[in-house]
Amino acid sequence: MSGKEQQEITDDLRKFADERDWGQFHTPKNLVLALVGEVGELAEIFQWLTPDEAERVTDDPKVAEHVRDELADVYGYLLRLADVLGIDLNTALQEKMRSNAERYPIDRSYGSAQKAAEGQ
Amino acid sequence: MSGKEQQEITDDLRKFADERDWGQFHTPKNLVLALVGEVGELAEIFQWLTPDEAERVTDDPKVAEHVRDELADVYGYLLRLADVLGIDLNTALQEKMRSNAERYPIDRSYGSAQKAAEGQ
Amino acid sequence: MSGKEQQEITDDLRKFADERDWGQFHTPKNLVLALVGEVGELAEIFQWLTPDEAERVTDDPKVAEHVRDELADVYGYLLRLADVLGIDLNTALQEKMRSNAERYPIDRSYGSAQKAAEGQ
Amino acid sequence: MSGKEQQEITDDLRKFADERDWGQFHTPKNLVLALVGEVGELAEIFQWLTPDEAERVTDDPKVAEHVRDELADVYGYLLRLADVLGIDLNTALQEKMRSNAERYPIDRSYGSAQKAAEGQ
Repeated sequence: MSGKEQQEITDDLRKFADERDWGQFHTPKNLVLALVGEVGELAEIFQWLTPDEAERVTDDPKVAEHVRDELADVYGYLLRLADVLGIDLNTALQEKMRSNAERYPIDRSYGSAQKAAEGQ
Repeated sequence: MSGKEQQEITDDLRKFADERDWGQFHTPKNLVLALVGEVGELAEIFQWLTPDEAERVTDDPKVAEHVRDELADVYGYLLRLADVLGIDLNTALQEKMRSNAERYPIDRSYGSAQKAAEGQ
Repeated sequence: MSGKEQQEITDDLRKFADERDWGQFHTPKNLVLALVGEVGELAEIFQWLTPDEAERVTDDPKVAEHVRDELADVYGYLLRLADVLGIDLNTALQEKMRSNAERYPIDRSYGSAQKAAEGQ
Repeated sequence: MSGKEQQEITDDLRKFADERDWGQFHTPKNLVLALVGEVGELAEIFQWLTPDEAERVTDDPKVAEHVRDELADVYGYLLRLADVLGIDLNTALQEKMRSNAERYPIDRSYGSAQKAAEGQ
C-alpha cells in the first residue's frame, strides 16, 4: 500500500501550486532547473561517502530522513514537469521498458556495464 | 488509468536488472550519477528553446517522443534508487507535501517566487 | 588582470585539500557528484527567474555575490577533477574549439539553434 | 604553460558564438541548462565504473579523449556563463578560497568528510 495513486498526487501538487499562484513559475524550463537543483542536493548527500557508507546511508534515521526528503523533492518536480507537459510517467516508463527489453536481450547483455550504460 | 502501479513497475525494473546481472552496478552512488546523466539529457532538449517553444515542445510528435523518453529514463533511475534505498516515493512525497502545506501557508506564500524557491 | 594563473590555483586547491587530508575524498566519482551538487545550487538561483530577471541577476549586489560564489564552487570542483585526472582544462578546451570550428562552419551554422545544440 | 590565458579563451568563445549568431541562445538560464547537459555527459562516463576503474579512466586513450572532451565542454559553458554574467572565474575562486581557508582551519577540519562536505 503506497497510499494515494500517482495521478492523485500529481493533482494535489498542481492544486498546491495553483492555490499559491505558483503555476506562473512552473514552466517546463523552470521545472527542469528545479529538478536539477534537487538532484544536486541528493548528490551532496552521497558525494564524500565511500561505496559502503552509501549502501548503509539509511541506517542512521536522521540521514535516512534527509535522503527521503530529497528523493521526494526530485520526484515532486518530476511529477510537476510531467503534468505540465501532459505526460503520464508510469505509461511512458512501461513503454521504455518494453523497448529496452528488446534492445538488451538477456544473453547479450548479461553482466555488461557497457550494455547497462545504454539501457537500464 | 496509468496501467501498472508504481510498486509493480519498481519490481519489474529490479527484475530487469537482476536478469542481466546489472544489480552489481546499481549502487546508490552509481544510480545518482545515472540520474544526473538522464537529467542532463532532459536539459539538453530544453537548453536553446525560448520559453514559448518550451511550452509547446510536445506539439511536434518526434520531439514529444524524445521528451517522453527522457522523462521515463529519469523516472526509471529514480525508482531504482528509491528501491535500492528502501524508500517508497509516493509515501515520501505525500509526507513532504504535508510538511510543505504547513511551511507555506497560502496567504503568506501567494505569488511569491521567494517562497516557491523554498517549497514546491 | 585575473591574478593567479589557472595552474597556480589548481596547485593551491590541491594543497588546500592535502593539508586537511581531504585528498582521500577527492576521487573522480566523488568530484563529479560534488560538481553536480554545485551546479544544482547554481540552478536554484535561476529556477524561478524570468529570462529578463536572469539577465539582470547581478544587478543586486547580494545576489551577484551569491552567483559569484556558486560559479566559483563549480569552477573549483572542475579544476580539482581535471587535476585528479591529469587534464589541462585550457588546453583541452582549445582543442575542442578547433574541432568545433571545423564542425560548425559559420555559413552553415548561422543562427541555428540546432547547430548550437551540438557545438557551443 | 597552458597556452592561451583564460581571458583570451573566453574572448574566443564569445567570438565563436557571435560569428554564428548564437549569442541569442546564450542567456544565463540557457547556459545553466547547457552546463547541466555537459555535466550529465560527464556523469555518464563514470556511472557504472568501480572506484578503481574510475581512478584509471584515462589509462585507455580512447576513454581519456572522451573525458577530456566532456571536461572541455563543461569548462566551455562555464566560461560562457561567467562571461555573460560579467564574472571573472579565477578572481571569484581565489576569493572563495580565502574565505574557505578561514572557515575550515586545518586543525579542526583534518580528515573530516563533514567539513569537506561544506567547503572544498
